[in-house]
Amino acid sequence: MKPSPRSTPLPWSGADLRSRERDWKRNAVILAAARAFATRGYHNTSLDDLAAALNVTKPTIYSYVDSKEELLFECFKQGVDQILAGFSEAETRGGNARERLMTVARHYAIAVTGDFGWCMVRLEEENLEKTMSAKIKTLKSDVDQGLRKLIRQGVADGSIRSCDAKMTAFTLAGALNWIAHWHRANDALSPEEIATRVLEIFELGLAPR
Amino acid sequence: MKPSPRSTPLPWSGADLRSRERDWKRNAVILAAARAFATRGYHNTSLDDLAAALNVTKPTIYSYVDSKEELLFECFKQGVDQILAGFSEAETRGGNARERLMTVARHYAIAVTGDFGWCMVRLEEENLEKTMSAKIKTLKSDVDQGLRKLIRQGVADGSIRSCDAKMTAFTLAGALNWIAHWHRANDALSPEEIATRVLEIFELGLAPR
Repeated sequence: MKPSPRSTPLPWSGADLRSRERDWKRNAVILAAARAFATRGYHNTSLDDLAAALNVTKPTIYSYVDSKEELLFECFKQGVDQILAGFSEAETRGGNARERLMTVARHYAIAVTGDFGWCMVRLEEENLEKTMSAKIKTLKSDVDQGLRKLIRQGVADGSIRSCDAKMTAFTLAGALNWIAHWHRANDALSPEEIATRVLEIFELGLAPR
Repeated sequence: MKPSPRSTPLPWSGADLRSRERDWKRNAVILAAARAFATRGYHNTSLDDLAAALNVTKPTIYSYVDSKEELLFECFKQGVDQILAGFSEAETRGGNARERLMTVARHYAIAVTGDFGWCMVRLEEENLEKTMSAKIKTLKSDVDQGLRKLIRQGVADGSIRSCDAKMTAFTLAGALNWIAHWHRANDALSPEEIATRVLEIFELGLAPR
């Protein structure tokens, strides 16, 4: 029996629309926070500044997040999530392990040129309370372990020369994270070009001789 | 005519000894600050904490430095100075430009595993007032320009493959600076072994094909 059309809510029913609109607005608050933290630093940014930047009242901010700390947590989380998405992309695109590692690294480099990537690298986790900080550490560790795994797979499938997977993962992540320290939004190179030039050295340095 | 022995002060005359002792004590204050900043963060460290850690009074701290900010400045400065010393070492040791770059990079890697190297990478320059911050930026720029120059020289002398010197310098500095993010004093690898493993990828990635 065909289900009654009324049993499935319309994609833009009132409740759904309100929920999407709420998510959208909450994300706008988080993005504004990321930009304010990047400009003024976490300690020098108040929720009053944020409310002013968004042209809303402070109670409006509090309707989306409980605290400045929650905003910090979300900035970290979105940064790491963007990088983790590269691992799914690598699985979809396929290739040998070095090629998959490079897909992840390229995605990583581009994420780091963005607002949340900046936050993930530059903001201090010490400002998060323990539970939040532990969650971010776990996500970052997932990235690190994912890189190491691809490197070990590359050594196994012959696409990466024999190397210390942990040190190589740190070296790669360091070069990529560092983009957040020197990249400017108005850089002459696009994020894609930056990724290509930064990764060239790893392409050559990882290839078997 | 032989100068009178009294015209040259003895190396450990009272004044000289007092001056050396003062430098030594001031350096001990700066090192204690570096360690406190690394453990608790800059904002969460007070001169009271430092005085307590050194078992002296706060006025004693003030007899060596004017402010917590001056301590921060000195931590940055000593970190960058240690790295800059690698360029002199490279000139002394010689070799082609890639070899000299690797001497600098090795020195850099080892410096970053230390207390001041940690400070140089991890502390926020934004906490320095403008004049101090400008001095640190100049020193850091000297490091960056020094790396780029060696890379360009390497491309010219054929020891480094053709590459974008700026991006390559950033990539190398990123991998090296990142050591301050993952290195622990009790790491199983010595600073020298860390330098070797991190730099292997650059040795191979920079060599001409």
